[in-house]
Amino acid sequence: MLPWLRDGHANPSGAYREAKRARAAIDRAREQVAALIGGDASEVVFTGGGTESVNTALHSLDHLTGSGNAVVSSIEHSAVLRCVEAMARGVSRMPVNVGGVLEMDALAEQLKVAAFVSMMMANNETGVIQPVSEFFQMAKAAGLPTHSDAIQAAGKIAIDVKALGVDMLSVSAHKFHGPKGVGALYVRGGLAFEPLLRGGGQESGRRSGTENTAGIVGMGVAAELALRHLRNDGATSISAMRDAFEAKVLGGLTGVTRNGDTTRRLPNTSHLSFVGCEAAGLLILLDEKNIACSAGSACMTGSQRPSHVQLAMGIPEPLAKSSLRFSFSRLNTMVDALMAADAVIAAVGRLRRVQGDGVGPVVVYSP
Amino acid sequence: MLPWLRDGHANPSGAYREAKRARAAIDRAREQVAALIGGDASEVVFTGGGTESVNTALHSLDHLTGSGNAVVSSIEHSAVLRCVEAMARGVSRMPVNVGGVLEMDALAEQLKVAAFVSMMMANNETGVIQPVSEFFQMAKAAGLPTHSDAIQAAGKIAIDVKALGVDMLSVSAHKFHGPKGVGALYVRGGLAFEPLLRGGGQESGRRSGTENTAGIVGMGVAAELALRHLRNDGATSISAMRDAFEAKVLGGLTGVTRNGDTTRRLPNTSHLSFVGCEAAGLLILLDEKNIACSAGSACMTGSQRPSHVQLAMGIPEPLAKSSLRFSFSRLNTMVDALMAADAVIAAVGRLRRVQGDGVGPVVVYSP
Repeated sequence: MLPWLRDGHANPSGAYREAKRARAAIDRAREQVAALIGGDASEVVFTGGGTESVNTALHSLDHLTGSGNAVVSSIEHSAVLRCVEAMARGVSRMPVNVGGVLEMDALAEQLKVAAFVSMMMANNETGVIQPVSEFFQMAKAAGLPTHSDAIQAAGKIAIDVKALGVDMLSVSAHKFHGPKGVGALYVRGGLAFEPLLRGGGQESGRRSGTENTAGIVGMGVAAELALRHLRNDGATSISAMRDAFEAKVLGGLTGVTRNGDTTRRLPNTSHLSFVGCEAAGLLILLDEKNIACSAGSACMTGSQRPSHVQLAMGIPEPLAKSSLRFSFSRLNTMVDALMAADAVIAAVGRLRRVQGDGVGPVVVYSP
Repeated sequence: MLPWLRDGHANPSGAYREAKRARAAIDRAREQVAALIGGDASEVVFTGGGTESVNTALHSLDHLTGSGNAVVSSIEHSAVLRCVEAMARGVSRMPVNVGGVLEMDALAEQLKVAAFVSMMMANNETGVIQPVSEFFQMAKAAGLPTHSDAIQAAGKIAIDVKALGVDMLSVSAHKFHGPKGVGALYVRGGLAFEPLLRGGGQESGRRSGTENTAGIVGMGVAAELALRHLRNDGATSISAMRDAFEAKVLGGLTGVTRNGDTTRRLPNTSHLSFVGCEAAGLLILLDEKNIACSAGSACMTGSQRPSHVQLAMGIPEPLAKSSLRFSFSRLNTMVDALMAADAVIAAVGRLRRVQGDGVGPVVVYSP
């Protein structure tokens, strides 16, 4: 990114050579992002981030479809939920089971009154991978346009938009070690589409605004590195760290719940509840040990409400407020993972000593 | 920006220390941008760029006002024009005079059927500064909410949102040497507002999406440097370069029109038409001499249509297609300006020799 931040100030829409060099760099990034999700470069629209991608996709679906509900899961990210709630149409919130997996039983019924569907590929709190393939197949069979929020999944598991048959799919660069402030929206070639941001007609009229060359180049390289990591079975090394972390925590403490169906989680995510420990207190103690984690998702931090994801999974409110999400990446080591587990064990112990022993029944919600 | 790109990856909404450091950096940038436009930090909403700022403002006005027209100038940037054209309401396009200055004669009449108004502070092709103060005064007297696209003006002339009495105002970082992919929207405290991007509720619910810490920090510093430059009478040194450039070009060539009212232009902009020279050809010849300029605006480059701004000024189509915009900044020197003039004189001469002498009547549209 640095050359583009330092000297590459040309407007990629300009007619001079430096502008064409910027254009070429953006085109290359478009190929790199397309490769990560299995799409064609012409189907990749760069945006200002994942939230803009999601809002753009849902805005387009809202404007181009007739009456009917927006069908989403009850555990979508707030970018999807707040967006569809603002529409002048009904919202069907599909339930999940105790493992945080989408329940498909009522789907056929819901699709009958639907205008379009949006389903996340993996949940951003629990990391649980959703049955999107079956879901989108049913939606397509019902003739409904589809969007997937793949922001949490991209770079962590393989994505193939063609195999999925999805019409639009959102990704965000900073979720796979790219820069903040840049994302992409896959828009299937030939799909009717209405832009959210209008103006100079950049991105083939699909997203106006002077292109963020440095950010886009950074996203492209991050996509290439993430794809290489995935192809080199990087997921296995990450899940090994995550699993070692969980084994040590679960072995060292009582009253810990591991949330989310462990047979279908992203390799990097661990979502744990600690009976008798307020998450807010744990965050402070862990921060002192340089462990940066979150209660629910960062987008929910500061909110006093328990996570809607956990409530949808049937986790009781007190336990939902005692939950932390830990994320691992290829920039971590096994030593990091084990040290994090030690820190968690110490912090929970310390907090329970302060707050009373707090050890209640251990509730296991997932296999 | 570099520390935030290299190590400052914390999500500013996180609860850990690194997140709070990012939050503090964003708060500082908010003060810096507020200072540039005379607003309060709490009134600054960071966005993914100028186009998003404009679309956000107009979307909010569209949703929160009843029936009536959107009143804009005929020379707005395409971000404003394409946005209001997509609305289910009429658009009043206010005319400009031959100098590219908004004509106020019909305004009182137009305001009677208006729902809201949006007026650019300075035009992005000619640099002509618009009579926004009088305009917004009349709009406020009529009880109408107001937005100003100040993207071209910010950092080049003083802006005081309080003195203007404007409700919303859009700026873009890369127009004053900040990074691409970040902008801001001033939203007057207490103004009814509806967000365009919904989700995690960042920016006090006014713009969701994980904050682009590096970009925002870069915008803040760029705003501070631009303000310092303005306070040190930097505009005078820039207009001196621009004026020397124009004097040399006008002295060295026949058949050159200087477009836009020279008594009220941004200090950095020169908009010239060269009789008998297609702009496309001039761009190529000037690029060979490392002069990066544009035909109209970069957002229009590649379009074969003549600029709507020039047509609104009554510039005939052939001359409109023979126009270039030159921009100067505090990073240029007087030597740059004079070398650019030499290059323009040589390029125009060369093109005219190839295309025939092409010297027609010299038309002067502005004082």
